[in-house]
Parts: sequence; structure tokens; C-alpha cells
Amino acid sequence: MIKITFPDGTAKEYNKGITSLEIAEQISPRLAKEVYVATVNGEVRDLTRSIDTDATLKLHKWDDVHAKHVFWHSSAHLMAEALELLYPGIKFGIGPAVENGFYYDVDPGDGKVINEADLPAVENKMKELAARNQVFTRREVSKKEATDLFTQKGDEYKTELISELEDGSISLYTSGSFTDLCRGPHLQSTEPIKAIKLTSVAGAYWRGDEKRKMLTRIYGITFPRQKMLDEYLIFLEEAKRRDHRRIGRDLELFAFSPKVGMGLPLWLPKGSDVRQNLISFLTSVLRKRGYKIVTTPHIGNVNLYKLSGHFEKYSTSSFKPISTPEEGEQFMLKPMNCPHHCEIYNATPHSYKELPLRLAEFGTVYRYEQSGELHGLTRVRSFTQDDAHHFCRPDQLMEEFKSIIDLVLYVFRVLNLNDFSAQISLRDPNDKEKYIGTDESWEKAEKAIITAAAEKNLTATVVPGEAAFYGPKLDFMVRDAIGRKWQLGTIQVDYNLPERFDLTYNGSDNQKHRPVMIHRAIFGSLERFVAVLIENTAGKFPLWLAPEKAVILPISDKFNDYAGKILEILNNSDICTLIDDRSEKIGKKIRDNELKRIPYLLVIGEKEAEKGTVAVRRQGEGDKGSMKIEEFINFIHSEISKELAY
Amino acid sequence: MIKITFPDGTAKEYNKGITSLEIAEQISPRLAKEVYVATVNGEVRDLTRSIDTDATLKLHKWDDVHAKHVFWHSSAHLMAEALELLYPGIKFGIGPAVENGFYYDVDPGDGKVINEADLPAVENKMKELAARNQVFTRREVSKKEATDLFTQKGDEYKTELISELEDGSISLYTSGSFTDLCRGPHLQSTEPIKAIKLTSVAGAYWRGDEKRKMLTRIYGITFPRQKMLDEYLIFLEEAKRRDHRRIGRDLELFAFSPKVGMGLPLWLPKGSDVRQNLISFLTSVLRKRGYKIVTTPHIGNVNLYKLSGHFEKYSTSSFKPISTPEEGEQFMLKPMNCPHHCEIYNATPHSYKELPLRLAEFGTVYRYEQSGELHGLTRVRSFTQDDAHHFCRPDQLMEEFKSIIDLVLYVFRVLNLNDFSAQISLRDPNDKEKYIGTDESWEKAEKAIITAAAEKNLTATVVPGEAAFYGPKLDFMVRDAIGRKWQLGTIQVDYNLPERFDLTYNGSDNQKHRPVMIHRAIFGSLERFVAVLIENTAGKFPLWLAPEKAVILPISDKFNDYAGKILEILNNSDICTLIDDRSEKIGKKIRDNELKRIPYLLVIGEKEAEKGTVAVRRQGEGDKGSMKIEEFINFIHSEISKELAY
Repeated sequence: MIKITFPDGTAKEYNKGITSLEIAEQISPRLAKEVYVATVNGEVRDLTRSIDTDATLKLHKWDDVHAKHVFWHSSAHLMAEALELLYPGIKFGIGPAVENGFYYDVDPGDGKVINEADLPAVENKMKELAARNQVFTRREVSKKEATDLFTQKGDEYKTELISELEDGSISLYTSGSFTDLCRGPHLQSTEPIKAIKLTSVAGAYWRGDEKRKMLTRIYGITFPRQKMLDEYLIFLEEAKRRDHRRIGRDLELFAFSPKVGMGLPLWLPKGSDVRQNLISFLTSVLRKRGYKIVTTPHIGNVNLYKLSGHFEKYSTSSFKPISTPEEGEQFMLKPMNCPHHCEIYNATPHSYKELPLRLAEFGTVYRYEQSGELHGLTRVRSFTQDDAHHFCRPDQLMEEFKSIIDLVLYVFRVLNLNDFSAQISLRDPNDKEKYIGTDESWEKAEKAIITAAAEKNLTATVVPGEAAFYGPKLDFMVRDAIGRKWQLGTIQVDYNLPERFDLTYNGSDNQKHRPVMIHRAIFGSLERFVAVLIENTAGKFPLWLAPEKAVILPISDKFNDYAGKILEILNNSDICTLIDDRSEKIGKKIRDNELKRIPYLLVIGEKEAEKGTVAVRRQGEGDKGSMKIEEFINFIHSEISKELAY
Repeated sequence: MIKITFPDGTAKEYNKGITSLEIAEQISPRLAKEVYVATVNGEVRDLTRSIDTDATLKLHKWDDVHAKHVFWHSSAHLMAEALELLYPGIKFGIGPAVENGFYYDVDPGDGKVINEADLPAVENKMKELAARNQVFTRREVSKKEATDLFTQKGDEYKTELISELEDGSISLYTSGSFTDLCRGPHLQSTEPIKAIKLTSVAGAYWRGDEKRKMLTRIYGITFPRQKMLDEYLIFLEEAKRRDHRRIGRDLELFAFSPKVGMGLPLWLPKGSDVRQNLISFLTSVLRKRGYKIVTTPHIGNVNLYKLSGHFEKYSTSSFKPISTPEEGEQFMLKPMNCPHHCEIYNATPHSYKELPLRLAEFGTVYRYEQSGELHGLTRVRSFTQDDAHHFCRPDQLMEEFKSIIDLVLYVFRVLNLNDFSAQISLRDPNDKEKYIGTDESWEKAEKAIITAAAEKNLTATVVPGEAAFYGPKLDFMVRDAIGRKWQLGTIQVDYNLPERFDLTYNGSDNQKHRPVMIHRAIFGSLERFVAVLIENTAGKFPLWLAPEKAVILPISDKFNDYAGKILEILNNSDICTLIDDRSEKIGKKIRDNELKRIPYLLVIGEKEAEKGTVAVRRQGEGDKGSMKIEEFINFIHSEISKELAY
């Protein structure tokens, strides 16, 4: 008999050699149908493999990332089988599961091309094969056997991969007529794969090396139920509609220029205003909360980053150092603002009475990303952090954490980001060696974070072992309007930089003491945050954030003068307003301007000109009645106050 | 007879061989006494050299930069003579006139040191020699003679200099017992040198090469009248008192860190606020004047700057290109914002109806300056330009110029920079080849600038030949409170970049046309401008610009609570306020806070706490009476409005 321990801590005895699937069936036949893979003693394995020793066991259903991974990996094999039947002689590279679905890199053979028009036929073949409930069979062979098999088949990509493996047990998986070199694990059979969609075709160099052959990468996704696929396809459409790159172009928010460089956003006037509205909003909030704003250069001497440790850490994700034409100095584009803030701290002496010192900066940093990794505003080479550093006494840590949590929650509320989760990352209690700072300070800091989160009613998962080497931290994840998760705010304690930069303050005992440093960001990167806001709101920014608040639509040219007057009044009242004085029908003007997502449309004609009013329409909502100009000004200001009042 | 033509265009005949001095004496003996040097046919020469051909002649009096230069150069020789008498065996490097005075680099010989305590004795010896009216005598010798002379004297620095000269006529000047290798020209004699001050001693490497010997550089200044020296010394004291580096440190406005890098300012909270106040002020003015704000990265691909021509132009004054760790791309820290703005222009199509497009950015640029050239905020390696580019139709040039002149004059008035001059730089009419753009467009643009300046009642000097190759321009020079001139605003027409970036707009004829570009800056560099403001105001910023508007001084600890309440009310009313709640006597609190240049000091005691008032003191002016809190808030807001209302 062997003892199987379940995640809830309960244990039960089973016959040696039992499979995870058999255990699931004993618990409930329904469970057995829903389980796709199991983790046995920490290893993710096929359900049908036998268990021969005492073990911990976790069974993975669809909702679990491991189950999805196996589901999609098996689907990649299924697609490969279908391709082999449809394109005899096709050769295979690699075919992994990815975040949403799977792909397989294939070489259809000389002169043959697979493009998106061919995908429906492949899908149909996959459905046909899946319905046969083909079983996935694992087999372990020697390196020679594996090599012989794929050499015979003529699959040079596979033999190349095998040649790099150590001899011993190389595993192969077979389903239907298709056998693949594969570590597994897999589904029991193709039976659960009910809904199939191949989504796109792209080119991909074999092993990511541009000097080698370009293979055809076919992407797909599968689900256990058709409804799930339908929902996913709707989600995809919705995500496409909300794509910040598309909205950014349509609304003229930002652009990229190959001449300036990839991944370096050019903020067009409207986008720059959105960005500035975020900065002004946060600056005003920060000032009220005792922050001081500083401004530092975008480069620093290489030695600064050697001192801080960033030089080593960012070596491959930084642009190379910048030399001076004379004098042999070397600078770096700053990958982080912290070293500059440490030097600002060091520029003046500090007494215990002045702490905490909270230095904030909207600091633009530069990091190198490979061009293929760049994506709109979410993966860029230059981005502006809403960065701040709190320098405080150890006894102030908890109050500082509480004040920062307050601030983060306030900002999330103002921006309608109400679906968020938090994670507290602590030290690994079994490997204290790898962290800097004393036991006592870690215990205090961890307790401070946990207590602060609790006092602020923040539900946070506590994860030991996830802290940075320099201190514990608290991270916020936000879920957007279509369910995607974005990592935003972070609050991190740092015991490292105060040592490296020899930061001190004069204590009440008139001795020098070491302050604790807290790094914190709320938006993270302004670029990425604007992308999240665009995708979350589909470009319909809250009024306070919108670059333009209103557009005036005269019913005919006769009213352009009156429109001009209103325009001036509104713009002088800090309500950024446009005018559409084209000689077009009012219906067309309304339609055209609705598309621009300007919050208010002000229609004016004879009646309005006579009475000094405007007919107010809310974008996407329609008529809101007539208002005097002053009334409209007060209305807008009070709407904005309401949005910001949390 | 030869014909001498004077600067006013009149001409007169003289005997061949006459000297400039003799001509001056014929005009008036008084003039002859006031003239120090002459320009003959464009060459600045000794007054006593004979004129043998027809010539243009200009006589230089003290007010003229050439006269001062000769005066101070002769003073350097006088100092050298005194040093040689006081320090026999002393060797001489170079001894030029500089902007204010002169210096001589000397080598006093092994083991000998000259320091500031020794200067009065040298001054006295100079006065004694000057009073002897020693004549400066010019003599031309061969290279060999010159070498022999200085070899015999043992002056290895002079022989090194001579070795690099071509053979032929090498000139020597002798005054009293001192003979120097010197091109001249010089005063007739030491007689006019009435007031002498040696100001400082510094070390300077021979020929600026740190591998060679460190010489002793002795600085001095001289004047024809003691009163001038007295005034100059007062000016120096005043300049020292106003030195922005000192005030910047005392008021904690900015700092430099050797770790971050020389010439890279770190803006401390108060300085950052001053900077931001300038940005906010100008941004709000710009928005009202139809500018759109954009935001661009601080780097650009090297090819961008090759296209714009900046790569070539800034090759020695730029940091070296930045390589990527992979993919072999090269970027540059941007030395100018214009290429980025051209690419923003190109990001969307433009119609003739939308022009002018006015793009503004507070863009931080990076230029390499040698470390020895760096000076506080006035010579830095990173600075933020208040940059803007107007893209307009050729027919809009004059209106654009008028609007920019208006803007510059408004900003100067708000900042009390009322003593300024302007210069219009036009094409050299005799060398049209070297300019880009058609004759017609130049004529139009030059006329537009001249007419715009006239219509705006701007007195401007018109200087042909001073235009950039790409277009004519208008520059503003401001004179500060102690008479120093600073080049600030500039407005430049550009026909070059629109070609290079292929900028176009759709005309009313539905054809593509080329817009004209205008570059303009008002502050120039924010860093330099803040330095000018600090030195102009001695750190007493106007109220709207001051980082902190008021400080609350409770008479005793009893009133700290009331003080705290006022603090919150004022800060929530956007009046940045501090509190000084130290347990000190009120007299000391007032004295200490007066030094911080915070505009208002609010004293509170029993009476104020009872009545809900504050006793208001204006920094540097004293008591302004008692006010209710709301009254004080309104007072501050109305004072600021008054400052900004021009």
C-alpha cells in the first residue's frame, strides 16, 4: 500500500501502482471526466501513469493553468496529425502550448505553402480525428531508437533536437497515426477536445535564428466545450476592437516612427494631453500627501549603476554605455530612477524629524527590448515611471505602507479599476541566507506590510519566497473590462540601496542611522497604463482625463460666429473644446464626432444662439437637454469634481 | 597723399605714413587721449603704426571691446614686468586679455610659489611701473633671433611657442625692462593704466594638457580710472552675492553629484517646483495661443540625425552613439527636438486649413561639454528647451512672427525682464549661394520679420550676413539687474528641415505643398533661464514662481495647533506653506526665515488664534498688518493674478 496525500492535507492508502485517473474515479466518476492531468510529488504527469511510492497528489481541472497547458499541448499534437494526413511529407519543428492556445512550427516541404485560407480544412480534419477518441500513448526509447525513427521519417528538425539530448530515456507520444518526440504529459485521449479554432499563420525562424530556415507557425486554440470557444472568439473580437494600437491611431493619441526608432513612442497632442492629465492629477494628489517632486537627468555615469548594482542586473536589457567624445567618461541611459533619488537624498543632511522624505518623479527610463518583443505602448524601449521613493525610519514603515495602500486604492477608484487583487511577497523562511538585511528588520517589515494590508481591508495573497533579495513587497494586479489581468502598482521595501549609497539621518540620539527605502509606483509605466486605460475604456476616457471635453456643432454656417464665441469662453474656462464648422448636415457632424469619443457634443442653431444656450449631447448616450453656457461650464466642472472625489 | 575713410562714410586726405594717433590728434587732442587702438582696413593695430595706403579707419575708445582688449593685454605685459622684477628667473607662458581683465600663466621656478597673499606687492610694483609711462615698442625679428633671445633668457615656454611659428616676421613688444613674444597691438604706453587689481591665482596646465607642467595663472583687471575699478569691485561683490550656484545651494534648489555625472543637474524639490512653475505658466499661455503640446523620447536613431544634418553638426558636441546589445541599432541622445517634431508632423496628414500647426515641447536635450567648461546651470550637459515649431504656409509667416514676438514680450514683462534688445539676422546679400531656399522665399521671410518687428514696436538691429544657412532669424538679448547681457529667446525660419523630412500639406488646389518651419524658444534652456532669474532676483522670485509662498511662525508652542490648521487650509488652497514650529524666540524665527526668501511670513500668537487671523510680514519689507485667513488667501491669489496679468 502507498499513502496519497491530497492538497487539503487529508491522506488515504491505495494499492501500489494505482494511477491518478483511478484515484479520481474512486473519488467520483464525474471528477475523473473533468480531470486532465495530475501533479504527483511536484511533477506534472499523465493521469494514466502509475504511482509506486507514497506521494502528494493534485488533480488539475480546466480552470487550472496546468490543465489548460496539457489540453493545448495535446491539441498541438492533434493538429500535427491532421497536417501530416493533409500534407504528406510535412516536417515538424516544435509545437508548444502558449498562454492562449498552442502553435506548431512546420515545414510543408519545397514549394508548398500553408496559409490562413487552408486552416478550415485542417480544423475539420482535427475535429474528425478528435472524435475518434485517439489515446495518447507514452513510450520511452533510447537516443538511437529515437534518432532512427525520425531519420527514417526524414524529419531533420526532430533529429537535430534529439542530437542535443542526453542518452537514456527519451519519451515519445503517439496518438492516432502521429508520433512525436515529447516530454509530455498529455491528455488520456483526444476525446475532451470538442471545440477547435486555428487562428493564424506566421513565419518563424527555426530555433529563432534568422540565419536558418523560415518555418510556418500555425496558431490555434481549443476548448472542451463549443460555448467556451464562442465566448473566446467574442473576447478576441472585443480585444481587437479595444486594441490600444488601433484606438491610438484612430484618435491620434500616439505614433511610432521607424526613423526615430522602434518602441519609442511619439505622443501626439491629444495623447500627450491624456498623459499630462494623468501626471497633473497624480502630482496634485501626491502634493497633498506630502510628496516632494524632483527632476533628474535621463543618464547617469556608469559607475553610478555599478554602485547601485543596476549595471549588472540590466546588462542585457539596457542600451550600451554612452561614451564622451573626449575625457573618456561613460554614461548610461537610466534603467531606473532610484540611484538618482539616492543622490538627491545625499545632497542635503537629514534629521530624524524630517523623515519620512517622499521623493516622487515622473522619470523616463530606457530599456532595451528586442524589436520582435515590442508591442504598442505595452512593450516599449522608453517609458515614464510614476516613481517615488520613501526614505523613512524603521519605526515609520507601517504608517508609510498604509499611506501608500490608501493612495493606490484611491487612484484605482478614480480610474474605475475596481477589480484588483494583491500579493504580499515574503522571504523564503528556509533560505534566509539569500536576502540582505537583518532577521529583525525583515520580521518587522513583513509584519508591517501584512498589518497595513489588513488594516486597509486589502485582501492579499501572502506568498513566502517571492520577495526580492533586498526586501519584501506588495503588488497589485488589475482585471480590465474584458477580464485581462495587468500588473500595476508595486510597493517594495529596500534594505540594499541605503547601504550601497550610505544613506544616513541624524537620530534623536545625535548618531547616524540608516533609513529604510520604499520604492513604489501606482501606474507603473505611464505608457503601459495609458494602453490599459484605452483598452479598458475602449478609448472613452473619463471626462477629467479626456484630452478634449467638448465639440461645438453649428447646425449651419450661420451660427459659426456664435460657435466661435462659445469656443473661446469654454477654452478660457479650462474646458478644452473644438469646433466642427464644416458645411455638413448636422446628422453627419454628430455621427463623425461621436466616433472621436469626445465626451460632449454641443449642437447650436437659431434657438441656442438667441437664448445663449447649447443643446448638450453626451457621447454614446444622446440628448441631455439645453443649458446656458455658464450652466454647462459649472456642469462640466462639477462632473469632473465628482469623478475625482473618492 | 592717402585717403582715410571714417566709419560715418566721410573721407579725408592725409600724408602717406601718418599714424592713427596723429589723425586722432588732428581731430581733437582730447580724442587722442581717449583712443587706445585703431582698426585700419579691418586690422586692429597700434595707434603709432604708420598708414601707407588708402584705408578705412576706426578709432577705439574705452567703451569699445577692442580698446578694452588692448588695455588689458598691455596690462598683462605690465604685470609680467612687475613679476620679473619681484621674482627674478620667473618664466612666462601665455598672457592674454579675457572677457573681464587678463591673466598670465607663469612658472615662478622650482620651489617658489605665488599665492593670493603675494598679489598686493605685485599690484604696487605694477602701479609704480605704470606711473613711469613706459612706452610699448614693437620690433620685428627673425625666428632665429627670437629663439636666441628667449633661449638666452631661459624661457622654455616661449621657445616652444616660437618653434611652432613660421619663419619671417616675428614681432616682439618691449615695455620698460620686459620683452615679450607678442602679435600686439598694444597701448602707446602704460600711462592710461591708472587702477589695478589682481583678483586671483589658479593652477593651469601648460597648453591645457594635464600631462604637462602646472603653471600659476594670475588674474587681474585694470581701468583708466579708479572709480571704474571701485564700481567693478562692487559689481563683482554683487555678482558673487547673486551667484546662482551659491543661492541654489543655500535655498536647496538644485545640486550636482559627481556620482551621477558632472553638468547633469539634480533638481531638488524646491528647484523642481520653480522649474515646474515656469513650465505650467508657459504651458497655459501656449494653450491659449493655439499651441499643441507633444512629448517625444530623449533618443533617436542615428539615421534620424543623419537625415536632419544634426549628426554632422553636433559630432563633437554630442555624446557618442548608443549601441543596442543585439540587432546592431545605433541611437543618439537627442541634441535637438526638431527631427522628432518633424516626424510628429509626418504622423498625420495635414490640410492647408489646419495650418499653422504649433507644436511645443519642454524637451530635454543632451550635449557634450568639456568638464572644464561646465558652470552651474548656465553650462550643463543636459538641459530642457522650451522648444516649439510652427509649421505654416508661406503666406502665414508674418502673422506667426507677430504672434511669437507678442508671446516673447509678454513673457519678458511677466518676468520683469524689461531691458532687452533684439537682432534681426539676414542673408549676406553678396553671398546668396551659401543659403538654402529660393530668393523669393528669403525676401518674403526677411520682409515678414522686419515688418512684424516694426508693427510690434520692437527696436531691432538688422544685421545682414548673420542668418543661419537655413533661414533668417530674430534673437532677443536681456540685460539683468546688474547689467549683464544674456541671450534668451530666438525665432528662426527654416527652409531646410521641411525639405529633408519631406513635409507636405494639401493646398486648396488639392496639390502637395511644402510648409515653412519656424523654430522658437523663449527661455532657451530652462536650466540657464532659472540661473538668470536667480541672479536677476538674487533668489527673491516673484510670488507666482516662488516654490513656497508662506511660512507660519507660531510665537510659542501653545499656538502650534492653530498653526497646523492654517497650514492645512493654505496648502489646500494651492498656497504652498511651511511651518516653523521650533521652540525658538519669534525674533530668531523671523530672522532665520527671512534668509529663506519665502515671500510671506505669518506670525501667530494669542490675538491671531482668537480672531482667526494671521499677522502678515512681507519678506524684506516687514509688517503688512493683520488678515483673516480667507482674506490672506484672496490676497495671495490676487497678487499672483496681478503678476501674471500683462
